[in-house]
Amino acid sequence: MSDPSAPVPHVVIVGGGFGGLTAAKALKHKPVRVTLVDRQNHHLFQMLLYQVATAGLSPGDIASPIRWILRRQTNTRVLMADVLRVDAAAKTLITDVGPIAFDYLILAPGVTHSYFGHDEWRVHAPGLKTLDDALAIRRRLLLAFERAEAAEAAEERAAWLNFAVIGGGPTGVELAGTLAEIARHTLRNEFRHIDPAEAKVRLLEAGPRVLSSFPESLSAKARAQLQRLGVEVVTGVPVDAIDADGYSLDGQAVLARTVIWAAGVAASPLGALLAAPRDRAGRVQVNADLSVPGHPGIFVAGDLASVQQDGRPVPGVAPAAKQMGAHVARVIRERLRSREGSAAPAPAFRYRDFGNLATIGRMAAVVHFGRLKLSGLPAWWFWLLIHVFFLIGFRNRLIVLINWAWAYWSYQRHARIILGGTDPPSD
Amino acid sequence: MSDPSAPVPHVVIVGGGFGGLTAAKALKHKPVRVTLVDRQNHHLFQMLLYQVATAGLSPGDIASPIRWILRRQTNTRVLMADVLRVDAAAKTLITDVGPIAFDYLILAPGVTHSYFGHDEWRVHAPGLKTLDDALAIRRRLLLAFERAEAAEAAEERAAWLNFAVIGGGPTGVELAGTLAEIARHTLRNEFRHIDPAEAKVRLLEAGPRVLSSFPESLSAKARAQLQRLGVEVVTGVPVDAIDADGYSLDGQAVLARTVIWAAGVAASPLGALLAAPRDRAGRVQVNADLSVPGHPGIFVAGDLASVQQDGRPVPGVAPAAKQMGAHVARVIRERLRSREGSAAPAPAFRYRDFGNLATIGRMAAVVHFGRLKLSGLPAWWFWLLIHVFFLIGFRNRLIVLINWAWAYWSYQRHARIILGGTDPPSD
Repeated sequence: MSDPSAPVPHVVIVGGGFGGLTAAKALKHKPVRVTLVDRQNHHLFQMLLYQVATAGLSPGDIASPIRWILRRQTNTRVLMADVLRVDAAAKTLITDVGPIAFDYLILAPGVTHSYFGHDEWRVHAPGLKTLDDALAIRRRLLLAFERAEAAEAAEERAAWLNFAVIGGGPTGVELAGTLAEIARHTLRNEFRHIDPAEAKVRLLEAGPRVLSSFPESLSAKARAQLQRLGVEVVTGVPVDAIDADGYSLDGQAVLARTVIWAAGVAASPLGALLAAPRDRAGRVQVNADLSVPGHPGIFVAGDLASVQQDGRPVPGVAPAAKQMGAHVARVIRERLRSREGSAAPAPAFRYRDFGNLATIGRMAAVVHFGRLKLSGLPAWWFWLLIHVFFLIGFRNRLIVLINWAWAYWSYQRHARIILGGTDPPSD
Repeated sequence: MSDPSAPVPHVVIVGGGFGGLTAAKALKHKPVRVTLVDRQNHHLFQMLLYQVATAGLSPGDIASPIRWILRRQTNTRVLMADVLRVDAAAKTLITDVGPIAFDYLILAPGVTHSYFGHDEWRVHAPGLKTLDDALAIRRRLLLAFERAEAAEAAEERAAWLNFAVIGGGPTGVELAGTLAEIARHTLRNEFRHIDPAEAKVRLLEAGPRVLSSFPESLSAKARAQLQRLGVEVVTGVPVDAIDADGYSLDGQAVLARTVIWAAGVAASPLGALLAAPRDRAGRVQVNADLSVPGHPGIFVAGDLASVQQDGRPVPGVAPAAKQMGAHVARVIRERLRSREGSAAPAPAFRYRDFGNLATIGRMAAVVHFGRLKLSGLPAWWFWLLIHVFFLIGFRNRLIVLINWAWAYWSYQRHARIILGGTDPPSD
């Protein structure tokens, strides 16, 4: 146990996601003081965020207060604050609740959306990174069906029943598949003027195939499963405009009131606070031990770190962020030991790729683990077990399983609550 | 079964709360078309709203989409819309999605907050009527502890740890009791700079006692139970000012950043849309059969109706609203029958009072049913069973019971998620 009054080194961690939280936990009972700073009060199980956006789960089912997770870790303080600046020379983090001096700094802030230079699209096509994003998307999806039911003109009705998801990565595939399921099954019998099953759900991917990080055979299976669910998959054509009325594809305007952005990520703006080289996406090009060039006491973990391994970039996924968080904690522990005599060179980070999985909808998923390739129902069960297992907290696992069982049996989604009054979305 | 193309009378119901929903259900399979209009998409189990405000339950646990509840009632359409005007002469309801002609109109919009002429207090002391209200209060409560942990000055810290609930009715008692429990138990061990148990929770009631609708002996028991939970109960002194820094009691300013309003209700502004007599609280003074004087085809049900019975007003509680909704549906059915010949005078509404119950906190409640008076643990069990029993939907009951069991066993509240970024509340 550490004595908080002793002059032990202070490790400041920015970000309570998978990278930051893993680093904090790996410093439990170690001779350091830890301060974890996050602008949110909760750790988010991001892999199930699309379930909140599609009303299958509530925010509290996939998020836990960071200070609750770390409540028994007495050498660690959690602080809800916004980071304004990093003063690397003075070893001080400047936040909106005051400056925090550090001996070691771990930046693990994650990513934000990138609209590829079209920031004016943001208001019309929200992205999905936070719980607030998920609730905003849920509101739009549910309100679209309400507006369609109330619409008098056929064209107006069609505009509200046209949905587009832009980006064919795992998030886009999950959103499009679940949205089709909602329209065809969940809402059946609930409307009198419209038939929700007439909703058109389009998944738009500029590249040649969906789920491009998977083998081609699984991409093809995912596409087929999406089509079976009623999703129209369009690949190879980039979106060239988005406004309040819809989007334009290869110069052709499509009327669609609900467009969701799942196409691009950009590094957190925190990366720009360091005087360090960054790649095109804004990620910090770290040393082999994940320290920042020129700042041996500052590390980057998770999606903000640009790491090449065997000629390919380490992907921005939760397992990579966790492994980086654990690695940085290990480097700091070894540095502390080497101060006490046993100098060892900082080990290089190596990403261990356990595999890749994505869900598509009811009983449909694709899994790629080494030589194992699964699709359809077996992949879906595999996906479900893995995700429920890694959820934090016994209660969350139980509640999520019950919600899933109920959804499976009844096709219902319990969180179909429109919050924020009747005002239409921004447009 | 009704044929939607037949020229059956059209009953329009405004409000999907207990009054409106009960009326709609009572018209199932009757020879009418029903349209239920609500500005929200969900029916809300309002008695558990304080649990959402105090992070014990999620919005989806206590709310269900109205159109889901009525999905099998084929003569009924649900429309999410705002009511703008009632044209009684033309028998038309004007909404933001267009006009709706009616043969019968049932107004059941519920109540809103009253700040007794001090509308400037609203921004500093939010009330609790909707899910949006509950989430705004939850955000304030949770952020107050975060701000206290980050505060450097002792006075600042104290201001964030001072909580006041204004109004000693059931909602105020529930909020104050639960808030004290959170500070003393739920948040224990999670903070490093503050001790949440040092939070001061005050319940302010201008009248002589809390729970004034209960017998005096139960008011006294409720007060004792509140004090045991750590709530300071102040009665007989009205609040005379509220601003961003706190409130003033009998001319004395108290620094408190978190003030919640549970003191007054006002009738929905919809009541003013009718050319009908209203009482001081703005409620419509209806005829004995709940029709509006001068407008035999328009009825008021629930909290908006001002009904005297045996010299006392019928209280604004869920059972009264349900009974009124059922009564109005019955009057309409009898009118339809009498058109076919068997003329009978419209029966007068009579409220059947089954009793009164309020919860105070963990294992503490008061119950008054006829001659039965309970307090403490037996009252709490009674309260729990009654409330879970009346929740709509099997899933909700199961999930709420699990959440309660978990909260009981662990003292935890799973929905402690701050949404809406890090910005402080309005002040």
